Amino acid sequence: MRIDILTLFPEMFSPLEHSIVGKAREKGLLEISYHNFRESAEKARHVDDEPYGGGQGMLLRAQPIYDAIEAIPGRDKARVILLDPAGRSFDQAYAEELSQEENLIFICGHYEGYDERIKPLVTDEISLGDYVLTGGELAAMTIIDATVRLVPQVIGKESSHTDDSFSSGLLEYPQYTRPYDFRGMTVPNVLMSGHHEHIRQWRLFQSLKKTLIRRPDLLESYSLSKEEEKFLQMIQENREIEELF
Amino acid sequence: MRIDILTLFPEMFSPLEHSIVGKAREKGLLEISYHNFRESAEKARHVDDEPYGGGQGMLLRAQPIYDAIEAIPGRDKARVILLDPAGRSFDQAYAEELSQEENLIFICGHYEGYDERIKPLVTDEISLGDYVLTGGELAAMTIIDATVRLVPQVIGKESSHTDDSFSSGLLEYPQYTRPYDFRGMTVPNVLMSGHHEHIRQWRLFQSLKKTLIRRPDLLESYSLSKEEEKFLQMIQENREIEELF
Repeated sequence: MRIDILTLFPEMFSPLEHSIVGKAREKGLLEISYHNFRESAEKARHVDDEPYGGGQGMLLRAQPIYDAIEAIPGRDKARVILLDPAGRSFDQAYAEELSQEENLIFICGHYEGYDERIKPLVTDEISLGDYVLTGGELAAMTIIDATVRLVPQVIGKESSHTDDSFSSGLLEYPQYTRPYDFRGMTVPNVLMSGHHEHIRQWRLFQSLKKTLIRRPDLLESYSLSKEEEKFLQMIQENREIEELF
Repeated sequence: MRIDILTLFPEMFSPLEHSIVGKAREKGLLEISYHNFRESAEKARHVDDEPYGGGQGMLLRAQPIYDAIEAIPGRDKARVILLDPAGRSFDQAYAEELSQEENLIFICGHYEGYDERIKPLVTDEISLGDYVLTGGELAAMTIIDATVRLVPQVIGKESSHTDDSFSSGLLEYPQYTRPYDFRGMTVPNVLMSGHHEHIRQWRLFQSLKKTLIRRPDLLESYSLSKEEEKFLQMIQENREIEELF
């Protein structure tokens, strides 16, 4: 995968090197280039200017962004992503979709806005959520982190992200590590039992319970197995999984 | 405001210095401290350990996190935030709520998880969205950026974030800057007219139109003025604002 990032602040992207993205680069699975479009602004002009019709703040001009994108190799087959609060919501399915692309280009704007005429360049307007950020950089890094970890071979063991919340469609069950007794709080007995089948059932039950309580919307698009149907019914009857052991 | 961040990777937070957060610190409106809880792990023990009951990955242990938090001044009155996909969704209203606090503490986990027994420390479980990140650091920075820019006096002119998407409850209208003609795409005439009232109406109309098309859910919790009701009706009848000028 190749990722090109248009930003006025390339130095902001240093955290990516600490995350899974750094490892993906080391393995040769990913190439990232930064394009400071301040450098492609026409001579004697600025990267931003005042809005027509008046108003607060400065807008990014169209021309430096066009010039920067047109200089990127392979840009014709790239998904060109603009971070914008009006865009499509980013979620795990979107991350999976992007992880299958060869080329991604990110345009990081200012919170104050950009000239509407950059839109014809853009294939994907993405929103991270219903909140306002100072710039697109943190949003771009977040999307890149979530996407790159799904690229095949980036995470060592293929299985290690299939247990995540959202990958399975359910929230994750509670987990415990040493010591057994921490300030009077002990680990559920089943996890100490060594009984693999009980542990599997307990975890599935807890996942279903947490999802039902906190995110019942996730269950609407989830297809339940026979076992999961039974567990859900037990949860709704206020019963505990331990009674089956 | 004072923000304390528990993280194994304090160096990942450098982008905050480039964002509005750096300016808030310079103005003395914000203090940020990083706590690498690897340093508070008991001698000869690690910060993470294997899950009871088996499974992939390593979990953060409870004790180093307890020790780090208990050493933070003012932690009793702090909101203690854990980044977790099962948490409450972060949005602009949540950012406004957090921006009124004196003390915030962030616990940045690994994607692989943590010992459930850290939960009694936590006042807020926050989810950035339905996707999985390598760690909590990018999510923490995103929340901090969105929150700190709402702290009074952080952004120069008080008015400059009231026009944002979500602050008004509507998505933002399209904006344009020089040149008037960019590659054959011109600026809407009304914005060149100097007629302030027409410009105000045009922008409001475009905001409503964009919100109706892209995020009709936002209109459900929005209370429409008489003028906005009229504009919405025009939009639904496929009419344009220019006919009123």
